[in-house]
Amino acid sequence: MSNQKRNNGFRLKNRYSNTAKGKGGQNKGKGKPSKKASEKVNKPSVKVSFLGGLNEIGKNITLIECEGDIIIVDCGMAFPDGDMLGVDLVIPDFTYIEQNADKVRGIVLTHGHEDHIGGLPFLLSRVNIPIYGTPLTLGLVGNKLREHSLMSSASLNEVMAGDTITLGCMSIKFIHVNHSIPDAVAFAINTPAGTLVHTGDFKIDCTPITGDMIDLSSFARVGDDGVLALLAESTNASRAGYTRTEMLVSESLDSLFRKAESYRIIIATFASNVNRVQQIINCAEKYGRKVAFSGRSMVNYMDVARKLGYLHLPDNILIDLDMLGRYTPEQVVLVTTGSQGEPMSALSRMAYSDHRKVMVGEGDFIIISANPIPGNEQAVGNVVDELMKRGCKVIYESMYDVHVSGHACQEELKIIHRLVKPKYFIPVHGEQKHLRKHAELAEFLGMDRKNIFIGDVGSSVEISDDGIKEVAPVPAGKVFVDGLGVGDVGSIVLRDRKHLGQDGLIIIVASLDVYDGHVISGPDIVSRGFVYVRESEGLLDEVRKLALDILEDCANRNIHEWGIIKNRMKDEISKLIGQKTRRSPMILPILQEV
Amino acid sequence: MSNQKRNNGFRLKNRYSNTAKGKGGQNKGKGKPSKKASEKVNKPSVKVSFLGGLNEIGKNITLIECEGDIIIVDCGMAFPDGDMLGVDLVIPDFTYIEQNADKVRGIVLTHGHEDHIGGLPFLLSRVNIPIYGTPLTLGLVGNKLREHSLMSSASLNEVMAGDTITLGCMSIKFIHVNHSIPDAVAFAINTPAGTLVHTGDFKIDCTPITGDMIDLSSFARVGDDGVLALLAESTNASRAGYTRTEMLVSESLDSLFRKAESYRIIIATFASNVNRVQQIINCAEKYGRKVAFSGRSMVNYMDVARKLGYLHLPDNILIDLDMLGRYTPEQVVLVTTGSQGEPMSALSRMAYSDHRKVMVGEGDFIIISANPIPGNEQAVGNVVDELMKRGCKVIYESMYDVHVSGHACQEELKIIHRLVKPKYFIPVHGEQKHLRKHAELAEFLGMDRKNIFIGDVGSSVEISDDGIKEVAPVPAGKVFVDGLGVGDVGSIVLRDRKHLGQDGLIIIVASLDVYDGHVISGPDIVSRGFVYVRESEGLLDEVRKLALDILEDCANRNIHEWGIIKNRMKDEISKLIGQKTRRSPMILPILQEV
Repeated sequence: MSNQKRNNGFRLKNRYSNTAKGKGGQNKGKGKPSKKASEKVNKPSVKVSFLGGLNEIGKNITLIECEGDIIIVDCGMAFPDGDMLGVDLVIPDFTYIEQNADKVRGIVLTHGHEDHIGGLPFLLSRVNIPIYGTPLTLGLVGNKLREHSLMSSASLNEVMAGDTITLGCMSIKFIHVNHSIPDAVAFAINTPAGTLVHTGDFKIDCTPITGDMIDLSSFARVGDDGVLALLAESTNASRAGYTRTEMLVSESLDSLFRKAESYRIIIATFASNVNRVQQIINCAEKYGRKVAFSGRSMVNYMDVARKLGYLHLPDNILIDLDMLGRYTPEQVVLVTTGSQGEPMSALSRMAYSDHRKVMVGEGDFIIISANPIPGNEQAVGNVVDELMKRGCKVIYESMYDVHVSGHACQEELKIIHRLVKPKYFIPVHGEQKHLRKHAELAEFLGMDRKNIFIGDVGSSVEISDDGIKEVAPVPAGKVFVDGLGVGDVGSIVLRDRKHLGQDGLIIIVASLDVYDGHVISGPDIVSRGFVYVRESEGLLDEVRKLALDILEDCANRNIHEWGIIKNRMKDEISKLIGQKTRRSPMILPILQEV
Repeated sequence: MSNQKRNNGFRLKNRYSNTAKGKGGQNKGKGKPSKKASEKVNKPSVKVSFLGGLNEIGKNITLIECEGDIIIVDCGMAFPDGDMLGVDLVIPDFTYIEQNADKVRGIVLTHGHEDHIGGLPFLLSRVNIPIYGTPLTLGLVGNKLREHSLMSSASLNEVMAGDTITLGCMSIKFIHVNHSIPDAVAFAINTPAGTLVHTGDFKIDCTPITGDMIDLSSFARVGDDGVLALLAESTNASRAGYTRTEMLVSESLDSLFRKAESYRIIIATFASNVNRVQQIINCAEKYGRKVAFSGRSMVNYMDVARKLGYLHLPDNILIDLDMLGRYTPEQVVLVTTGSQGEPMSALSRMAYSDHRKVMVGEGDFIIISANPIPGNEQAVGNVVDELMKRGCKVIYESMYDVHVSGHACQEELKIIHRLVKPKYFIPVHGEQKHLRKHAELAEFLGMDRKNIFIGDVGSSVEISDDGIKEVAPVPAGKVFVDGLGVGDVGSIVLRDRKHLGQDGLIIIVASLDVYDGHVISGPDIVSRGFVYVRESEGLLDEVRKLALDILEDCANRNIHEWGIIKNRMKDEISKLIGQKTRRSPMILPILQEV
């Protein structure tokens, strides 16, 4: 560390000091610390850019850029909205990272949820960047990279909560937080411009199931040393009060296990919620039940969690799903995926009698230990109904305390704001309504509105002691993954899918004489997704006749440009169909020359 | 009324007496009262059949059949689920009614919501049946029938709450209830087999905005006279406690009007919620604001409600939407449709800057005075976000008490059960989870499980003093309305739409020599909704080459059956596409002979 750096303006002011670097800091990065300190004497600004996570749920990824160094916080994916037909998942647009690959010093990960790590394989297949995370997070990332055959080239660097790493001119302290997956951290990022705190996803749980309570002392210390800006998650910013402790679920599960007595118990929850599964296992042990896992992701997550010591399984408690038949209902608990009503998940298959190994019925006591994520309400409701029709007892939604959120509510957010005492605030991770609510909360705590920035995907701000100002946006957006294709499905393809899905299509095929344009074969009419063809022969005959009339009329008038002929067919056939049916199928004329 | 009738078994037992007929009964029906009493001396049973409304939200329609007479309670529609692509609305299958048209004496309507009257035009266009309802309900039905040019032939018969009509061997007492639309009623249906009570949709509101509290005394009197079976709505059967009074909304609106001061106020609510709009108008009057209506259905409903005296507009308070520009923001309230985030509604258009007359922005204070119906959460959330991005203040969801439900919660249901004291109970109007909860509630009140029937669409039960037993189901199901087509979209069309919407399609067109089957023109490849064609030319070339190979191979081997050739093309091209992209577009080979 150069003397200039130690003695530059902001060091002396002591407000945004970067003393964290001195305390147990370690350098696992490949960057050169403070390499540019000598070039600049004035205190620099830090640029924060968002490739995702603002005005959307998921796809969280934030870039911190200072003096030519960039670090990336998280690299998530999002699930497609209802109008992104056929899209499997949505990832960030990585253009800006590719353009600045030489500056990127590393990716730091807050935790192992898909909306924070799911984009990594797609980024690493373009730019290989070292990754820093806690053990469980890296375990889950490893699984993902192996699936994409990227593991051998990847640089995964384990960091324990409490440790500090240095990447380029920045040092990053990993601060333990509570969340719905173990080993989650927040970051205090010390930059030449001052310290940024990024909370990641968190809640304050004074009685977590495993591990410690969130490390509030570290937040307090960082806050006392001076924080330039806070970036805090906003998922529950609209909810008053506190998120209740995970411990509460233990009590509810216990009473439900007692109530379930002679029933087989089936519990659906998020595969990543290791602590929740731990509680289920604890209950199973207490009531002498064996545990079986169902659903690929449940099996995978529990495998990683167990290997890394985050899940504690009493001896001989785990049985294979194939062994279920050897036990009576009251001897087993089945822990399954499908808490969101996902159509291909284990619980949905059980509900619709489509599971190869598990048949459900009157002997089953089913607990959905999760709340529906907005947009999944109907799917979850349908699964509950189907299970009930089969005679199952179903505990769902908020009927009992079988679920608590993993995110901080307003009172918890306030505590973090008060401890961190930032000069500027950027609400992150949430839709507009959440970001606004979080901004209002900061204002309520006394922050000046002009010190708060509500951004969007692609937004970029420069922050310094002098202020927070929006600068030119960076390239950003939604990239759709469909099967093996990344980015080859865009707005035109989606528009066509929507049109086809809503209204179906009518294809008109004809072979025309290469010399005079008269019809040699056809026109033949093929329709899909429009009407029952057998009941609509009259209408399709009319279409055929109209198509023939148009083609012959064009030939007679010496109109041979296919673009003109096809457009006329589209227009006139659309009009006919519209009049007769008030529908608008896609009209697709295909002409061949013979 | 014949002597036999008066003196038959059930009359003497006095438990299920039909004294209601004597009290102010009137005969507006065309049926012949008691015509069959002389044919039967033993006490008959009554058959109740459900063409809709069980295991679903909406499409409520129940048939009551006794001694050769049928009456129909409500005739609703439902909105399509997410997987009913392109479907505009869903109506009941009317086959059973058509088959028994000579027995049907009339349709009695509980209230004017779409899920209770929306199927009427489709039924009346097949079978003309006299309709009985309260004034507002008939006003709304009239509008609907006029749209379908059915008004001139329809028989609409006005009945006031408190009155009793006779249809065939049954007499039906209209009992005033509270609901989210005025003029709602329940029915006490006196049949030779005993009395049935059908609640329709209801809640108990001791302080309604207009009209009286629900007529609990009538429920009590009917109950005291003896009730064979209760059919009660289950919408809120999972909710503990009471639905709060509509009056509460007045207080909330008042405080929000005060808060909104210099803002323009825009309030979205259900067009049918006349009392809610009345409260908004009352507030507008108090704070000196003019009122404008936006959205076709809002204008229509308010027009009917005003003409029939259900909406009271102070002089000169109403202004046309075109006049908005003449007033300052604090001088107006805009009452609009779109509280469910419907894409084409007025509020959505405002949110997406697509409304021809209203531009929203920082001067707007927007209140969504409705809860999202399950399935609409995301759409509503998106509209809220868009409005906020434009700088609007938005009050939504349960942030303030700007909405109360129109349906009875558990405590209210209990009161009705206790007053009516039925021998048998059939929970109606709800999904499986609601029906089950309601059944549990009846059990909790002491009813024997075997006296409760949980049915499905098509279920039919025979009820008598001796018991309630399920009999052969009646024809029933979902009929899809798409544009002008009723029932011409079914499972195959929907399956194709889903396939096309998810994966798009690839069309392969070729002209073959009529003599030897060799390719004369093509194969040409056309794709829609699959990939960006420009970026996938290589893949589409491969498809073309494979198609050509198959066609020529078939010609060389003298395989000329098109079914075989097309199937081979589908299989091999699907496989190629699957390997290259892991997608499965619809493959559509089209061959022509030249």
